[in-house]
Amino acid sequence: MVTSVPNRLPSGKNSTAEKLLVAASELMIERSSIEISLSDIAQKSGANAALVKYHFGNKDGLLLALLERNAATELSNLEYLLAQPITATAKLKLHIGGIIRAYYRFPYMNRLIHYLLHETSAGSADEVSKFFVAPLLDFHRRLLAEGESSGEFRKTDPVLFYTSLIGACDHLFFGRHAMSRATGVGPVTDEVCRQYIKHMETLICGGILTQAGEAAAAG
Amino acid sequence: MVTSVPNRLPSGKNSTAEKLLVAASELMIERSSIEISLSDIAQKSGANAALVKYHFGNKDGLLLALLERNAATELSNLEYLLAQPITATAKLKLHIGGIIRAYYRFPYMNRLIHYLLHETSAGSADEVSKFFVAPLLDFHRRLLAEGESSGEFRKTDPVLFYTSLIGACDHLFFGRHAMSRATGVGPVTDEVCRQYIKHMETLICGGILTQAGEAAAAG
Repeated sequence: MVTSVPNRLPSGKNSTAEKLLVAASELMIERSSIEISLSDIAQKSGANAALVKYHFGNKDGLLLALLERNAATELSNLEYLLAQPITATAKLKLHIGGIIRAYYRFPYMNRLIHYLLHETSAGSADEVSKFFVAPLLDFHRRLLAEGESSGEFRKTDPVLFYTSLIGACDHLFFGRHAMSRATGVGPVTDEVCRQYIKHMETLICGGILTQAGEAAAAG
Repeated sequence: MVTSVPNRLPSGKNSTAEKLLVAASELMIERSSIEISLSDIAQKSGANAALVKYHFGNKDGLLLALLERNAATELSNLEYLLAQPITATAKLKLHIGGIIRAYYRFPYMNRLIHYLLHETSAGSADEVSKFFVAPLLDFHRRLLAEGESSGEFRKTDPVLFYTSLIGACDHLFFGRHAMSRATGVGPVTDEVCRQYIKHMETLICGGILTQAGEAAAAG
């Protein structure tokens, strides 16, 4: 726990903190930007700006708490997925779609991760690593181990796998803006997400499935 | 051409401009950071800081010119690659290795691209799109078309292909720092690059090759 997030509470436990998080989330979606001010957040939530300081230390603390809340939801979905009585290949495909849809649903998540990892204090970056990077990498380790032991996946390094999958999914949202400037590539829509999920399934499954895995993917 | 880069000249044409670019490049490599000051650049190059303004408008203009010079070198390599009498599959593999090695050779390139695309004026972002994103996407279009027409590649959308390949390569360098904080993942070394090139070849080739392409990859 970093000192910049002194009074962070589990979501739902404190209605003012919760209201501030919801207001920040809605503002960033409305503006397609993470550039929001404390007074905007206060105004939208109907709370006093001083309460941001009380609950989250400062704006970065609030953004960190928001990202942590979203990450916690996604990570509990991963635990649920891992426990399902389906093949590792089916879990892998659901996971690929899950990442891309999560980024699509919370378009600011991607910008926030970049911002908190690279442009704020080392404390924020450590927190993001702890509640986002480490659990996701751990999930990949377990999923790959499951697929290898069932004979569906060839041996695949989890760190390299994480890097390629998360990098490719992240870039649909982070890189798209730059691409559309130069080339008339359109924005990321529902349909683009569906196409990219299919594309990534083909790449990742093509790259790591054994023949047994391909049979599982087709079945 | 944006107005912030008023006196930019082709590399090698102006020895002071060239010295400033070399000094900036060396400083960013030494410090593993793009946070360098005009006076540091001037001191290292032995030139007057006012010359940065004369040649490049300002520091962002200098960084943009440096990135453009590196991009021009890489893109001329791509043209050369495309003209070789080898299979599209062989070109694809060489290209994957080429991207990862270029990022490894110029570790600041990745940070500069993110910085110039997202944190500076729209003019810089347009320039980066024009000299980096658009030509690379165009190369992917032509390489994919070649492989499809030779029967080596299945039909693959170039924009989705670009997004996944560049995103995955980029993330080895951009995301690694965050990963190592949380999990004891080490830095990117020569050996990690070699492993990642192999991993990406497997993913990308697994995902887009037809049976004919797989024969070309093996042969």
